[in-house]
Amino acid sequence: MFSSDSPYLSSRGSVIKWFWDSAEEGYRTYHMDEYDEDKNPSGIINLGTSENKLCFDLLSRRLSQSDMLRLEPSLLQYPDWRGHLFLREEVARFLSFYCRSPAPLKPENVVVLNGCASLFSALATVLCEAGEAFLIPAPYYGAITQHVYLYGNVRLVCVYLDSEVTGLETRPFQLTVEKLEMALEGANSEGVKVKGLILINPQNPLGDVYSPGELQEYLEFAKRHELHVMVDEVYMLSVFEESVGYHSVLSLERLPDPQRTHVMWATSKDFGMSGLRFGTLYTENQDVATAVSSLCRYHGLSGLVQYQMAQLLRDRDWINQVYLPENHARLKAAHIYVSEELRALGIPFLSRGAGFFIWVDLRKYLPAATFEEEMLLWRRFLDNKVLLSFGQAFECKEPGWFRLVFSDKTHRLHLGMQRVRRVLEGKSQVAEDAPSC
Amino acid sequence: MFSSDSPYLSSRGSVIKWFWDSAEEGYRTYHMDEYDEDKNPSGIINLGTSENKLCFDLLSRRLSQSDMLRLEPSLLQYPDWRGHLFLREEVARFLSFYCRSPAPLKPENVVVLNGCASLFSALATVLCEAGEAFLIPAPYYGAITQHVYLYGNVRLVCVYLDSEVTGLETRPFQLTVEKLEMALEGANSEGVKVKGLILINPQNPLGDVYSPGELQEYLEFAKRHELHVMVDEVYMLSVFEESVGYHSVLSLERLPDPQRTHVMWATSKDFGMSGLRFGTLYTENQDVATAVSSLCRYHGLSGLVQYQMAQLLRDRDWINQVYLPENHARLKAAHIYVSEELRALGIPFLSRGAGFFIWVDLRKYLPAATFEEEMLLWRRFLDNKVLLSFGQAFECKEPGWFRLVFSDKTHRLHLGMQRVRRVLEGKSQVAEDAPSC
Repeated sequence: MFSSDSPYLSSRGSVIKWFWDSAEEGYRTYHMDEYDEDKNPSGIINLGTSENKLCFDLLSRRLSQSDMLRLEPSLLQYPDWRGHLFLREEVARFLSFYCRSPAPLKPENVVVLNGCASLFSALATVLCEAGEAFLIPAPYYGAITQHVYLYGNVRLVCVYLDSEVTGLETRPFQLTVEKLEMALEGANSEGVKVKGLILINPQNPLGDVYSPGELQEYLEFAKRHELHVMVDEVYMLSVFEESVGYHSVLSLERLPDPQRTHVMWATSKDFGMSGLRFGTLYTENQDVATAVSSLCRYHGLSGLVQYQMAQLLRDRDWINQVYLPENHARLKAAHIYVSEELRALGIPFLSRGAGFFIWVDLRKYLPAATFEEEMLLWRRFLDNKVLLSFGQAFECKEPGWFRLVFSDKTHRLHLGMQRVRRVLEGKSQVAEDAPSC
Repeated sequence: MFSSDSPYLSSRGSVIKWFWDSAEEGYRTYHMDEYDEDKNPSGIINLGTSENKLCFDLLSRRLSQSDMLRLEPSLLQYPDWRGHLFLREEVARFLSFYCRSPAPLKPENVVVLNGCASLFSALATVLCEAGEAFLIPAPYYGAITQHVYLYGNVRLVCVYLDSEVTGLETRPFQLTVEKLEMALEGANSEGVKVKGLILINPQNPLGDVYSPGELQEYLEFAKRHELHVMVDEVYMLSVFEESVGYHSVLSLERLPDPQRTHVMWATSKDFGMSGLRFGTLYTENQDVATAVSSLCRYHGLSGLVQYQMAQLLRDRDWINQVYLPENHARLKAAHIYVSEELRALGIPFLSRGAGFFIWVDLRKYLPAATFEEEMLLWRRFLDNKVLLSFGQAFECKEPGWFRLVFSDKTHRLHLGMQRVRRVLEGKSQVAEDAPSC
């Protein structure tokens, strides 16, 4: 069934290996030929991976300060698997402040672990039986498929959104309660037991931000059907456009179903440190917090890193006066540059001033509206030394959408966009030359 | 079925929570009343958790050196999930040297992750279907039960060993191929599919060290039955008695079935850093290495810690001339002290000069040879403010064995042993006073 079947692995082991082998294609090519200004200037520019590479100077300076290297014996000993109390206290204070919670959040509702990938894995396992499912609006960050499946054997049921704008008040790929209801009904009629709903806010790859009213509606829907809601807010501090009013789910005056609402945050995106592996769960449900903690033996992070994260999150002066303003200014500048490039090329795109990416409509560059053509265009980008992410990887049902990450240094971004332009200008001609059918 | 059943959790979620709730009893009591020389001198002394608390001064000094805090951008970005290459190279060199491998070990056979608990979880999942099993000689480090079950739904089939010495060449709790064969046959006859064998060497809780001949026999047994062998060598550098000739499985001239032999090591024990969360797999089987790597998204460790570990493992001067000699001297001194105390009390025990613990025979203190009595004695220790581990937690089939950890600072160790003595002297009289039956 899987090309990576192995006499040494269990059937699930082969599936797990298959995910690695297949998901790695673009990245393997990229890692073998990574762009380097000096050593490999003709190497591949990565506009595919959602990382913020704009603030390494700030982070490096802050993380090298002498307050970061402290060695208490307790940091080297077996930890409380929920996370050291000093860190959970700091996380609770941090989230209370930045999520603007109506009341202070509590450390006992915090669980700390090595990233949100792990958190998806743990939540899927403790909330669902094998074979059960979560709803997720699509397009969505595709890796979640693996996160809930590899260990948890939990599936995702897509709530498919499309680009068509159907009314004055709507926007492309808009999530509505009607679509949620339909997807749930569809799953039920196929005998798939749905246990929860995953919301990503700000959304990845759309860059969408839900209004408090929308959030409330989605949560009410979930409550009606006794669904858990996992709200992934890993981009909450990466809203760089002041006019966008971002509202964390934790800012709501009253959660419709607090025992089934579980909030995820991490430093990977908002502090540009995907390699640091620090994520956190906030839930009032103590059964869920305890069950996830029990799995944290397998998702633990170093006591030394826990100490560093507490120091970082506690340093409001640096965050508010140095890091966030500068980070937002740099994100905004990079975003403006790429937006203008796209406009000059006459390419439609979506972007609402949050996240690291622009959701780009390249449908007119496909000779036919198929995923095969989408893949061909993606390969053409790669052959021209620029890595993007294609829409199918996000379960987008319309071929021709791409996610383009702009949170990179100017010289790489400029070169990457030149290469994008070259492919599209060439490709555009090919498409126009092709006989119409 | 489980007292921790919850309307919010899946059935496996409830089991996962149950493990947390039940396993935590002694530790919860301990953490609420932890001994502190100044602040809580009547608090509980922990001789239960297998940690080396003797070398914090050395570690602290080494880990605080300026070479430890380096911040390359790549350390903050998404890593190679197998571990950064610079670290895998260092691990390969380190294991080649300390395991005395006949040929240099290779970085491509190394996978790095956040501890051996995670490695057990990953290996169970990729090697076994749900419901399948591994053989393990018992008594064994009980947490492995959870490690293979919580995510992987894999069970352990015990190869029960007993204290009786049956011949000149044998020792108490000796593992033999005959016992392995019997346990495997037993499992087969019950329809349990066994996929592998777990060996811990040096053994926990026995402190036993397998000879090369024994190792070879166990590996040949596994090969005959096409069983994977996971060799857990987390105490390999904690052999403090020079007369004990320790042999890593990687030192063997020829592995009977290299594609099914998977070696585990970590810094938790040998470098006294259970809170640092660094473990590693060595396997020649690339299918297994890749499948485990695929799960490493959920077991990743910080790039900063990866850098620190590479620095530590590379510093042979410090390891060979400072850390290991001093660590072994301190372990030996603590071991001598506890051994002498036990001898003075007339208590039989097992210990072969490796590990952090002594396997203590307190059977004569039980009024009846039952696990209820074992638990009563354990509680009596706890009431008298000293935490030990009881044999049943290691699946020992003879009630009355306890694991006593000696790798602690002198003042705590002395106080802990005083409390042990007080309980046993009291308990001993009670036992003697009881009417014989």
